[in-house]
Amino acid sequence: MLPPLFLPLPTAVDRSYSIYFQQLTDLPNLMQAHGLKNPQLGIVTDKHVEKIYRRKVEAALIAKGYQPRWIVFPAGETTKSLNHLSAIYDHFLGYADRRTPLIALGGGVIGDLTGFAAASILRGVPFIQVPTTLMAQVDSSIGGKTGINHTVGKNLIGAFHQPSFVLCDVDTVQSLPVREWHSGLAEVVKHALITDETLFDTLVLEWDAVLNRTPEVIAPLIRRSVEIKAEIVSKDETEQGIRAYLNFGHTFAHALEQVTAYKTFLHGEAVTIGMIAALYVSKYQNPEFPFEKALDLVKALPISAAIKDLDLQSLTEAMKVDKKAQAGNIRLVLLSNIGTAYITQDIDPKAIQAAWMFALSSF
Amino acid sequence: MLPPLFLPLPTAVDRSYSIYFQQLTDLPNLMQAHGLKNPQLGIVTDKHVEKIYRRKVEAALIAKGYQPRWIVFPAGETTKSLNHLSAIYDHFLGYADRRTPLIALGGGVIGDLTGFAAASILRGVPFIQVPTTLMAQVDSSIGGKTGINHTVGKNLIGAFHQPSFVLCDVDTVQSLPVREWHSGLAEVVKHALITDETLFDTLVLEWDAVLNRTPEVIAPLIRRSVEIKAEIVSKDETEQGIRAYLNFGHTFAHALEQVTAYKTFLHGEAVTIGMIAALYVSKYQNPEFPFEKALDLVKALPISAAIKDLDLQSLTEAMKVDKKAQAGNIRLVLLSNIGTAYITQDIDPKAIQAAWMFALSSF
Repeated sequence: MLPPLFLPLPTAVDRSYSIYFQQLTDLPNLMQAHGLKNPQLGIVTDKHVEKIYRRKVEAALIAKGYQPRWIVFPAGETTKSLNHLSAIYDHFLGYADRRTPLIALGGGVIGDLTGFAAASILRGVPFIQVPTTLMAQVDSSIGGKTGINHTVGKNLIGAFHQPSFVLCDVDTVQSLPVREWHSGLAEVVKHALITDETLFDTLVLEWDAVLNRTPEVIAPLIRRSVEIKAEIVSKDETEQGIRAYLNFGHTFAHALEQVTAYKTFLHGEAVTIGMIAALYVSKYQNPEFPFEKALDLVKALPISAAIKDLDLQSLTEAMKVDKKAQAGNIRLVLLSNIGTAYITQDIDPKAIQAAWMFALSSF
Repeated sequence: MLPPLFLPLPTAVDRSYSIYFQQLTDLPNLMQAHGLKNPQLGIVTDKHVEKIYRRKVEAALIAKGYQPRWIVFPAGETTKSLNHLSAIYDHFLGYADRRTPLIALGGGVIGDLTGFAAASILRGVPFIQVPTTLMAQVDSSIGGKTGINHTVGKNLIGAFHQPSFVLCDVDTVQSLPVREWHSGLAEVVKHALITDETLFDTLVLEWDAVLNRTPEVIAPLIRRSVEIKAEIVSKDETEQGIRAYLNFGHTFAHALEQVTAYKTFLHGEAVTIGMIAALYVSKYQNPEFPFEKALDLVKALPISAAIKDLDLQSLTEAMKVDKKAQAGNIRLVLLSNIGTAYITQDIDPKAIQAAWMFALSSF
């Protein structure tokens, strides 16, 4: 028998990157600073975002000699599909080479879809995230998770693909529908709950200004929230450990989204309800947990969706098939204190049942 | 203005792996040795390979408690499509979690397609390469390039995704159609030409036994050829430098394949003609190059395809749009000696023209 061969792959390619808090019109300057000087580029967005920002971004790019080619999709989760991915391939491969950047201008749907396209075209072309929703800024644009949905479930097809850089223009959140603003805030509150009691206290103190999007109040809070996400990702890119803390409230949220076929709740709304359930279990596991204090802030997150006709058994079943569940065991992120998370699989099913009932009756 | 954030990603995940020269029936033992103990697994193959090896592989897997689920596609290049990728998603997502392995049993088409599916399902599931053609054993299964074709060109959609291990059963090449054997040998000769004069001399010495697939002669030659590919990949996984040496003859070959719509030549046949052209240019650039010696071995590679009606201008144009061309410049891998390659862009267009004429009139 011939001896085996070993193929060592020692090279650590540095995929570290920066997140800039500048204006959309700084995009071409940042591209030049990053050596992305190819005049051709593809820019993917949705119809809503196109209406508000295309003219401005296009003018800035053209003024610096870029030739942006736009790929515009309908707004909404159904755009994260193999068909739309294929449409990017068809468009972009008509003119792209390995140095042609692909830019995502929009929310999480556009960022996830475009990121996976950038990961898979020519085995990777330069990718730039320009998130224009709060949810995308503080969560989905950071950390390199890209992908599309499958009929079996969300985000089941995708890749880890880090961008060349992220341009986060915090002013863009002023144009968000109020429901999307609240949805994004759920992730900001989550970041505070899992890692940062100081951020939690600031949110409590400034909550009215936060809800009203007072620019000078929200800018540093958005930046801090991005920083928390970035710190967690840089410690655990591929979710072997602490990146799972970011799923606080999400095992419940995914169940809610699934049993309502993703039609009733915005993601952040489902996360809000999920966090209430997770706070309940946190207290169940540890009576010392400052439940009321945490709950007050989470319940201050407005929810526009009507909560009704939700079947407890379907919700519990749906939790078990969450893609982060292992071998049917429900694995939850809980809090030992505000700002301190942990993961456990050792949970009394009765606690989960009671948590659902508590959360669903909170609104 | 808020200061930018830096997201460091220092973790070097070790993706090194082994290539085993054992029998197909050792697959379950190797899986267990690699901690892949999930009974569920997906195994992708084509109809030809299924006919010869399914029963044997299935029995071995079942005997060790595995529950293989087969995904069988038509043989041939058209299987490397988005539709077939989508078919794997539909099948595999019905039962897979992040630890469910996806196995490619077959040639390069099956390996490339399955590898990209494994890269993109749940952002990466364990992947095992079991190459059953010489071409796949010495070339496509090694190095993590995976992908599918697009109407614009071949391999334009894909990812770098390294397998958990490769199982190379050299006995499987005995069942290859003779034309595919010769096609794979073109890559073995290429490996000798670009890096290993000793292998070259052995091939010359043993050529009759090589053509006849004498087991004890070809086994060490296949292993050495795999080793060359592995050495190059481990030095330059993402083709920033010396991995490009593997494209010796390929810029010409891709042009040939493209102008004949991938219908006339097997890949190795196109590479054989491409290597003759590249040897010609090597001599043009350096009159000291041992052209005749190299040419004798390359011309000993049988080609079954009929070479006719090829238009020189179309071939030259096609070379310029090869995806490895940069900004329209033809970049070629040439030899300074047998076993020593280099890359150059500084080539007289007349030399390329003359090389085409020489190569096409060689058969």
